[in-house]
Amino acid sequence: MTDIPDLAPWRSLLAKALHQNRSLVYSRYLQLATVTADRKPSNRTVVFRGFLNPGNRLQIITDTRSEKIAQIAVNPHVEACWYFPKTRVQFRLAGTIAIVTSTTTDETLQAARQTVWGKLSDNARSGFAWPQPGADRADCADSSAFDVETPAPTMPLDKFALLLLEPDRVDQLQLRGNPQQRQIFTRSATGWEQREVNP
Amino acid sequence: MTDIPDLAPWRSLLAKALHQNRSLVYSRYLQLATVTADRKPSNRTVVFRGFLNPGNRLQIITDTRSEKIAQIAVNPHVEACWYFPKTRVQFRLAGTIAIVTSTTTDETLQAARQTVWGKLSDNARSGFAWPQPGADRADCADSSAFDVETPAPTMPLDKFALLLLEPDRVDQLQLRGNPQQRQIFTRSATGWEQREVNP
Repeated sequence: MTDIPDLAPWRSLLAKALHQNRSLVYSRYLQLATVTADRKPSNRTVVFRGFLNPGNRLQIITDTRSEKIAQIAVNPHVEACWYFPKTRVQFRLAGTIAIVTSTTTDETLQAARQTVWGKLSDNARSGFAWPQPGADRADCADSSAFDVETPAPTMPLDKFALLLLEPDRVDQLQLRGNPQQRQIFTRSATGWEQREVNP
Repeated sequence: MTDIPDLAPWRSLLAKALHQNRSLVYSRYLQLATVTADRKPSNRTVVFRGFLNPGNRLQIITDTRSEKIAQIAVNPHVEACWYFPKTRVQFRLAGTIAIVTSTTTDETLQAARQTVWGKLSDNARSGFAWPQPGADRADCADSSAFDVETPAPTMPLDKFALLLLEPDRVDQLQLRGNPQQRQIFTRSATGWEQREVNP
């Protein structure tokens, strides 16, 4: 008996896609859909920051001032769509997102947040010291608005949030071949179920 | 006075992105987010099939048996996320989708549906004669399930639907540069408004 979660069966397929598409920087980009308070979908590109081990949670980062934070706080359900151009494989990962911020008390999650922060580039870290995302362009009024001191890699800014996407349904579609191959993985109380479906 | 709609101001930016990324087949792929009846987001890759002229509606195709048809019928709000890898530009197009099927009586829309059908490849047309998408894989039980006669390019199958995405908000983010450039276009009763915002 162990309390280390099993590696989900779709993990090996995703690892293979990441490996086969590694020459494309943007193969680590995926589109994250959320739902707004007025029940409209919202969709944007995010960067995959690796899995939080052990387990099957995908790490994504965001600014606490971004719209998706407010959306996820109200409705944690998301679906990420991840297309790998080189091998023509799509993964749809539906599940829920947990938000890890400076006030999160769980030590493991806080350590994960600090680790991901420490791996960011100077430019990426600086973005968290910039003016409010989506507000009227600040440097029209103040040319120094984006001229910030680069935050240290050892201390995440309060505006830095780690998002943990826990899939409960993964839909893989391989476009190569005719008909295409498609399989759906569904998480149940006893583990992951897998079935082949029509494309 | 004219009843021909103006070209929206974001159209030239999108046309430029399509042109500059034309060497990548998958630069015509975008991710379409919808909302399910139980208020969860749904997200998948679709192919841009050009604009319906005149106007600013994006054409997308789907099978009437797909989940997104049922979702859009209940909640027509969508957001498409379109990332152009070569020039590192993202467009988020929020708006509503109208569904054009074999029973649509509007002659202009029906003609558009037939035109898009006529441009599809043999393989793409055949897909609409295949078994129910997402159902248990049919050729496990019946090896001929996908061995269909190719439908004629002159007569769309009933299962072929044209989706028309009418954006009311377009958010363009140019990742090149530091800070990045971001602008939001919003449709109002009098036309499109445009503002520069913080990335």
